[in-house]
Amino acid sequence: MTKNLIKPLKLRDVTVKGPFWSKYLEMIREKVIPYQWDVLNDRIPDAARSHCIKNFEIAAGRRQGEFYGMCFQDSDLYKWLESVAHSLETHPDADLEALADGAIELIGAAQDSDGYINTYYTIKEPDGRWTNLQQGHELYCAGHLIEAAAAYHAATGKSQFLDIAVSFADYIDNVFGPEEGKRKGYPGHQEIELALYKLYEVTRKRRYLDLASYFIKERAKAPHYFDAEEKKPEYKEIFPEITPLDRTYSQSHIEPVKQDFAVGHSVRAVYMYSAMADLAAELGDAELAKACDALYEDVTTKQMYITGAIGSVSYGERFTTAYDLPNDVAYNETCASVGLMMFSRRMNTLRGEGKYADTMERALYNTVLAGISLAGTEFFYVNPLETDPAKIPHSPNYKHVKPVRQKWFDCACCPSNLARTVMGLGLYAYGRTDDSLYVNLYCQGEAADGGRKIEVGTSYPFGDAANLAVRGGRFRLCLRNPEAAPIISLEINGEPAEILTKDGYVVIERDWRGDNVAIRFDMRPKAVYCAGEVQNNAGKAAIMRGPLVYCIEEVDNGPLLGSYVLKEGDAITPIQPPDGLLAEAVALETSAYKYQHADGGLYRTQKPTLQPVTLTLVPYFLWANRGENEMRVFIPVQ
Amino acid sequence: MTKNLIKPLKLRDVTVKGPFWSKYLEMIREKVIPYQWDVLNDRIPDAARSHCIKNFEIAAGRRQGEFYGMCFQDSDLYKWLESVAHSLETHPDADLEALADGAIELIGAAQDSDGYINTYYTIKEPDGRWTNLQQGHELYCAGHLIEAAAAYHAATGKSQFLDIAVSFADYIDNVFGPEEGKRKGYPGHQEIELALYKLYEVTRKRRYLDLASYFIKERAKAPHYFDAEEKKPEYKEIFPEITPLDRTYSQSHIEPVKQDFAVGHSVRAVYMYSAMADLAAELGDAELAKACDALYEDVTTKQMYITGAIGSVSYGERFTTAYDLPNDVAYNETCASVGLMMFSRRMNTLRGEGKYADTMERALYNTVLAGISLAGTEFFYVNPLETDPAKIPHSPNYKHVKPVRQKWFDCACCPSNLARTVMGLGLYAYGRTDDSLYVNLYCQGEAADGGRKIEVGTSYPFGDAANLAVRGGRFRLCLRNPEAAPIISLEINGEPAEILTKDGYVVIERDWRGDNVAIRFDMRPKAVYCAGEVQNNAGKAAIMRGPLVYCIEEVDNGPLLGSYVLKEGDAITPIQPPDGLLAEAVALETSAYKYQHADGGLYRTQKPTLQPVTLTLVPYFLWANRGENEMRVFIPVQ
Repeated sequence: MTKNLIKPLKLRDVTVKGPFWSKYLEMIREKVIPYQWDVLNDRIPDAARSHCIKNFEIAAGRRQGEFYGMCFQDSDLYKWLESVAHSLETHPDADLEALADGAIELIGAAQDSDGYINTYYTIKEPDGRWTNLQQGHELYCAGHLIEAAAAYHAATGKSQFLDIAVSFADYIDNVFGPEEGKRKGYPGHQEIELALYKLYEVTRKRRYLDLASYFIKERAKAPHYFDAEEKKPEYKEIFPEITPLDRTYSQSHIEPVKQDFAVGHSVRAVYMYSAMADLAAELGDAELAKACDALYEDVTTKQMYITGAIGSVSYGERFTTAYDLPNDVAYNETCASVGLMMFSRRMNTLRGEGKYADTMERALYNTVLAGISLAGTEFFYVNPLETDPAKIPHSPNYKHVKPVRQKWFDCACCPSNLARTVMGLGLYAYGRTDDSLYVNLYCQGEAADGGRKIEVGTSYPFGDAANLAVRGGRFRLCLRNPEAAPIISLEINGEPAEILTKDGYVVIERDWRGDNVAIRFDMRPKAVYCAGEVQNNAGKAAIMRGPLVYCIEEVDNGPLLGSYVLKEGDAITPIQPPDGLLAEAVALETSAYKYQHADGGLYRTQKPTLQPVTLTLVPYFLWANRGENEMRVFIPVQ
Repeated sequence: MTKNLIKPLKLRDVTVKGPFWSKYLEMIREKVIPYQWDVLNDRIPDAARSHCIKNFEIAAGRRQGEFYGMCFQDSDLYKWLESVAHSLETHPDADLEALADGAIELIGAAQDSDGYINTYYTIKEPDGRWTNLQQGHELYCAGHLIEAAAAYHAATGKSQFLDIAVSFADYIDNVFGPEEGKRKGYPGHQEIELALYKLYEVTRKRRYLDLASYFIKERAKAPHYFDAEEKKPEYKEIFPEITPLDRTYSQSHIEPVKQDFAVGHSVRAVYMYSAMADLAAELGDAELAKACDALYEDVTTKQMYITGAIGSVSYGERFTTAYDLPNDVAYNETCASVGLMMFSRRMNTLRGEGKYADTMERALYNTVLAGISLAGTEFFYVNPLETDPAKIPHSPNYKHVKPVRQKWFDCACCPSNLARTVMGLGLYAYGRTDDSLYVNLYCQGEAADGGRKIEVGTSYPFGDAANLAVRGGRFRLCLRNPEAAPIISLEINGEPAEILTKDGYVVIERDWRGDNVAIRFDMRPKAVYCAGEVQNNAGKAAIMRGPLVYCIEEVDNGPLLGSYVLKEGDAITPIQPPDGLLAEAVALETSAYKYQHADGGLYRTQKPTLQPVTLTLVPYFLWANRGENEMRVFIPVQ
């Protein structure tokens, strides 16, 4: 068991600067966090009702009323607190901290004396605790509470929230486990496992690591817990509309260690794989590591969209099967790409290879960032690669698709998940081991690991250069060589250096004394094709520049985007972004062709002719910021 | 009001010969009718349970038990009897007639003394008659009873079944209508209207015409009957899984005469439009005729697949919106294309133009015939234009799609609907007015209208010639000039004649004395393109030869059918059909190209190369007769 694993830096030790990422972090800090607080307090007109804070007030006995919302509504507050914690860690703010302290005090007031917290069960089913593990989300909410508490402790050093989490975790550990008299269950929605691992990292108490490991090992064992649970008299259906669920939905069809392809609800899946990777790395569990390898390979080489989106079908928000990646009816939940980032970061820890950070970057710069509008107050839950707003209201095939971002959702998991992830950017950008510092994402700013320090100047993912000033003595600087934007030149203190890539990193070991490393990335726009098995994209390409996937929008190119054809080899030129998009962004322009259809019936023998046109492409993550319109990523190439 | 409307010939006056249609009619007669009788009696192992006959026996008090099946299960027997009637009309068969008489006797025994018949309500909800018109299907089943009874009367001259129908219709007329004290309702699933019109044609009793007209006129009037019905204490939900339904589902959102585009459940829609066309023609109702024009135009120029399939989405089996015609997730119920044939035949009556018969032909030769296997014992309910069996079990997007025809269905409307339609081919093939005889479908055989007689020799839709021997004195012979296979030469008694087409017909008026008319059709294979608004087919073509749409299948061309590209202008050659297909059929061969993908990841910058291949195409209606495999109609063209 190696303990020289790549671990994130402390968030407080990473500073993010520069126009692009500063904009997003400031937007989360100044707009999204206050907006989401207002939503949780039901103060935003026309947004879906949350009732989250009121649920806590009712559970705490401070208000009369009924529970409202999803049974996992509590997690919206926890994820909001995690965003706040990340914000406070780098940008202290006494007012915000006081607001968070108040919310934490409320959570504590809603906690039962034995440590249990869940407003749905406390208000609505006080006798129903743990009677419906597959649907009840108690352990899921507990996991988000623990993650938020760990983050808040890291940010503020305060113990109140962590104490609440510890008390809940201890209670859970008393209820569940292999020991006689304890429940042999596990969550229907995985999340507690990776949270318990985090709690172990903070507290170093072995019981949390063991409990996380127990939940993974117990899953799917015969006799099947969920089958038995459903037959008990106290069992109450919560989501009749999605039952009966087969066991693949919750990845409880076979034991996790034996799983080798991704099935079921995609968020559940990648949250579980994340915990599996945590445990495999921490425990040096080779069998579990092998399962992680197989699952990662299946997800990223057979079931992942070019945008890093996963879970292609609406019903069940599920993985389907290899190469089933439809563009228009795609589901592609924002949370699932957050989860893919989480899993990929842990695979980077487990295996030490840069390719996992490539996937993290793909999901982040395309689907996760697509989840939020440039205004910061609208969100996508579903992320198709092609959409025609005229059809959406009329066909149930597209009923899950929204042509523009929404103010909030009845099931509001995505906005807060996105916010906590973007606010935690620093946790994804770098990594450390005892002898190495890893640059996994290129963001302008600074990072410190003890005495080791890097300053990064870059406008990546738009610019093609990064300049690093590095100091702190002898260590290995490991620069990810992005698959999507390969390093094409490397200079150390102005001297050209050889680009030697191993396991996805260019490794430079020296005694760093303020040395300068200058990198240039290959940012030439390129057409990217799918494997032949993705039949709906045969003959089509998506245009990428660096890690960014581009799309065409109706606002730039007119309607009937399906009529465009690219000609192989035609130049694709970076241009200023159209009005209303991010000023820092790079748009693209290329000559192309459009089918012109003569008048005629629905079916005709006259072949449409191809007319030359100029096509404007914009980064996919920025689509639908200029009103409702057609959008499309994959375009035929002749 | 013109009374010189094109009406079908009597079925007994049409003889169908020749290898193609004889095969299908004999198959229905010798295999399908006995098979469906066994199904109705639950004698086919592994087929979905029917219980239809047992329901009648229970309702008749001859058996103990519970009702089983859909609330419209009775209609399966009625449609079976309609097939039997059509068969008996041209092929008397004492044993089959005795079997039918027995079934009719059973129906009579299940009839209440007031004329009401419906085994679902009689057994299950005896106090619930007419309490749920929108879901209960009592009037729908009554309509199929009446249609079958009219057909049986035409075939056998016997009155027993017609008496049962008349008694039920009289009872319905006593219950529903504009008069005070009568219910102001109308059916949730239209069908009774066109059946009442048929009953009027048989009996010439005005009350049935008036009642049909009432049901159409009353529909959607304020206050909305279904809204009021739902609020009554006696209302019981039958299909909770598809409610709440908006009023477009049952075309009761606005009065039928004001409707100008097709919405909602596609079978309901075209059945209603059929009755509207009947009534518009019979009553000379110009307003209703205008609505029919608009609806026909919308369906056929905006919402119809190239195969004559309609109703593109599974949820609600509905029309969606203009140009929303996805290939792979298509629903395209076989019954809906039967209904489109019905509507088109009536539009031909209403407007006297050949184009309506073009649509009839398109639906018949492609989707309706696709509904049955070459063995005659398997059926398609859903008819996609593209399918990949490997994906079907794994994605809910395709859960309605079957890669091979099925033995039977829980909802078994399609097999018996297809059977009665094909057995009634003679009713679609010709038309008559006082001064004209119309040839609407070219089928080998004979037709008589009084003293007027035609003998047709042709192997259409595969062959390119038809020879007609015509006698019976002076009348106008109106030969449809098929849009899909235009007449390119015309000879009368060996002398070339000018091809003058008016309203879709080549009209030849003369004193017919055994004269010979020789026609050649343009059967050159052709690439057919969609209007630009059908975005998913931009740059693609379907290959047609005459009225037949062709497809490629994996069994002939290997997997990954999405990888094929046609080159514009490459010759498409008729060939012998592959083994296992219909010997009479014509298959096609063309040079084409296939994308070859180098090894590489899911996403790669290397463009796939195009390799020349030879592609085999087979008629779409014959697909999936050689096992489960990929199939695709639209193919990219460069």
